[in-house]
Amino acid sequence: MLVQLDCIHEVNNEFIYRPIIAEAVQRMMDFVNKPQPVALHTEPSMKILLIGASGTIGRAVHTELAARHDVITAGRSSGDYRVDLTDLASVEALFAATGPLDAVIATTGSLHFGPLADFTPAQYAIGLNDKLMGQVNLVLAGQKVLNDGGSFTLTSGILSHDPIRYGSSASMVNAAIDGFVRGAAIELPRGLRINVVSPTVLSESLPSYGPYFRGFESVPAARVALAYSKSVEGAQTGQVYLVD
Amino acid sequence: MLVQLDCIHEVNNEFIYRPIIAEAVQRMMDFVNKPQPVALHTEPSMKILLIGASGTIGRAVHTELAARHDVITAGRSSGDYRVDLTDLASVEALFAATGPLDAVIATTGSLHFGPLADFTPAQYAIGLNDKLMGQVNLVLAGQKVLNDGGSFTLTSGILSHDPIRYGSSASMVNAAIDGFVRGAAIELPRGLRINVVSPTVLSESLPSYGPYFRGFESVPAARVALAYSKSVEGAQTGQVYLVD
Repeated sequence: MLVQLDCIHEVNNEFIYRPIIAEAVQRMMDFVNKPQPVALHTEPSMKILLIGASGTIGRAVHTELAARHDVITAGRSSGDYRVDLTDLASVEALFAATGPLDAVIATTGSLHFGPLADFTPAQYAIGLNDKLMGQVNLVLAGQKVLNDGGSFTLTSGILSHDPIRYGSSASMVNAAIDGFVRGAAIELPRGLRINVVSPTVLSESLPSYGPYFRGFESVPAARVALAYSKSVEGAQTGQVYLVD
Repeated sequence: MLVQLDCIHEVNNEFIYRPIIAEAVQRMMDFVNKPQPVALHTEPSMKILLIGASGTIGRAVHTELAARHDVITAGRSSGDYRVDLTDLASVEALFAATGPLDAVIATTGSLHFGPLADFTPAQYAIGLNDKLMGQVNLVLAGQKVLNDGGSFTLTSGILSHDPIRYGSSASMVNAAIDGFVRGAAIELPRGLRINVVSPTVLSESLPSYGPYFRGFESVPAARVALAYSKSVEGAQTGQVYLVD
């Protein structure tokens, strides 16, 4: 329905056109009050690969997105497909097996926590190889196979900028993921997008991690999952979605 | 010298006190115009280890700090001492050779530039092993031997948050260094401090790197060197000094 009101501005005598306004208002009210067919443009359902679906965030992301999309899962020891993200060849084999995808989400990655005084290069390498390069490998391989306009959504964490004791590797690795995402976003071809979700400590994790995060406000995984929805179903790229 | 002007506010008759103001102003002018003995507290000279002294930033930092401090240098192929920062044992040997230090500065580190489409895990490993872990190794070893209150000053770069084509490794590695510094700062013992200088492209580098940094304002290395002075001679910790 189109209501043309422009004509009002083209005349001096308002009385002549007042009936037009009255009719226009009436038609607007009719339009607003009448039950409408769905008028919003809805995107078609996507095929989404979720790696880390067995984790607390992964489960929440699956719940959030599976209602609207075809979500397939992969993991080191569970899911529809097996993959070792630290091995680029394994990631390439995963994409060959899944076929075309519209979105890839990673909610997985390990790193070591320990006192700075005792940290070793090998302990930093755990996070660099697993949480950082594991997710980077997804992008290196995925940029060649994702459907045009597809998206990557990675996971970092609040410690990049809000550090805790024993967390120097987490601060390093999470910041590195954020930086990589900002850098990769401007080079991805074919309208591919990439964002990263950077959550604070999960409410569900407080029983185990709470003592390390005293004074941090926790967030439920379901709230964190919204940021993945925004990344996958929105149109932004190069963003770090802080959820804290 | 103390000039008390408060009394003016306590009276209603300005004529009576005007001579006091005139005298006070005169005494102020005398004070300002007279050569003063050095009144500021000056810190004693420090023993500073500079790694990467042969680079453009390193030379500027040496010029800035050697005027006031004892600056010794180390590098892979030049300087007073030889060190391979990627090897923790080599870094430990360096500290054993230098003896007690008040400050360690790193203005060194390599990483790979290339199109995201062609980047390999091995190429990312160059920056992670050299520029990131090389500087981290300095902190791991140095935290045990620096004098109380000593400082580390590392080097990252603007691409952590202001990316360019071919710079996904630089964005990753520079952000990782910034994150590590924020994390390490809160765990260092004995009043040890750590900061990182994050410069934009150097004016001196424009002839070679300029085409990659179109539209970036460059800064002369001498200006970047001031941030190292602020880190070493100041009292802040956990800071990322952007110089752009």
